[in-house]
Amino acid sequence: MQKEMRLEPKARGFHLVTDEVLRGLPELRNFRVGMLNLFLLHTSASLSINENADPTVRQDFESYFNKTVPEGAPYYRHNDEGPDDLPAHIKASLLGCSLNIPISNGRLRLGTWQGIYLCEHRDRGGPRRLVATISGE
Amino acid sequence: MQKEMRLEPKARGFHLVTDEVLRGLPELRNFRVGMLNLFLLHTSASLSINENADPTVRQDFESYFNKTVPEGAPYYRHNDEGPDDLPAHIKASLLGCSLNIPISNGRLRLGTWQGIYLCEHRDRGGPRRLVATISGE
Amino acid sequence: MQKEMRLEPKARGFHLVTDEVLRGLPELRNFRVGMLNLFLLHTSASLSINENADPTVRQDFESYFNKTVPEGAPYYRHNDEGPDDLPAHIKASLLGCSLNIPISNGRLRLGTWQGIYLCEHRDRGGPRRLVATISGE
Repeated sequence: MQKEMRLEPKARGFHLVTDEVLRGLPELRNFRVGMLNLFLLHTSASLSINENADPTVRQDFESYFNKTVPEGAPYYRHNDEGPDDLPAHIKASLLGCSLNIPISNGRLRLGTWQGIYLCEHRDRGGPRRLVATISGE
Repeated sequence: MQKEMRLEPKARGFHLVTDEVLRGLPELRNFRVGMLNLFLLHTSASLSINENADPTVRQDFESYFNKTVPEGAPYYRHNDEGPDDLPAHIKASLLGCSLNIPISNGRLRLGTWQGIYLCEHRDRGGPRRLVATISGE
Repeated sequence: MQKEMRLEPKARGFHLVTDEVLRGLPELRNFRVGMLNLFLLHTSASLSINENADPTVRQDFESYFNKTVPEGAPYYRHNDEGPDDLPAHIKASLLGCSLNIPISNGRLRLGTWQGIYLCEHRDRGGPRRLVATISGE
């Protein structure tokens, strides 16, 4: 099973999208055991799995990644798409665009505190598209 | 094939767990070709693949990640679970909680120098659970 | 389907290898829907997906990762294989050695701007080997 999904536009930052993704994947319940791959079709946003409860975790992620991948570093050469563009590419590779999550009994087998993050690294990233592929039985 | 496994509690740091994982997966030998997914059910530890020989590599990893993701940064807001908690979440996303490793002839198809790391980012993380899923034939 | 591939030796830096990888995978066209896993058999190089157009992005990646994972940090203990070795291991774990890319209608389902990077972190890494595994139908 494979389908393309669209995530609504989001502000720059880290967003919990577990529910938005699951709403688009009613087919999950047909799989007793399997694997979900989520593949984001962009190079300036990323997918990650992390804490699903306290929103300050996601705020701290945004602060941390802005600090560790600064805008306007003097050695950047790729500057023609705005100061947020090259850092967005670097953050996307640090965090990754492809997630594999096991499926058990028709549900994602996430830990109690795990959720799916859409990490929007651009100031105005717009809607983001991803490909969901399920294998299993 | 899917099963949940438990890794014994480990000190904060980077640990080679290839043998511990393989001991829990005797089913591997039944697969001629396939893929193993290891999915850690936590948000303050991670899985990685790296050098399996010299323990100073893993010590240097701990030093590096402590330096690049410091405790007590003045801009952290998520501080109520101890100074090691928020950095642990960030390290977990930098390194990832989900690994895919090919299987060939009943064995993991790792390179000569590759091993599986359990990266324990908490001071007292306790036992860690993971879900192992094998697909193939 | 599983096969081992060899990537030609590359200079230290970030290299777009989408075409080199695809040339070695004519079998892709036989899969209507599926998943490609690329697994690099090394611990001092990595695989990533990022911008496939402007070469300055890849130059900036090399600059950034050299700055954020410096050579010769005073706390490194693993120094006997050259100053580029331990940083190469760290970069390899930050970026990862295992990629999952969906397949649709016989082709990789990459976004318009996405390409596959071989990230060579050693000064003289030599040829790099990877295992390609395709599942699907």
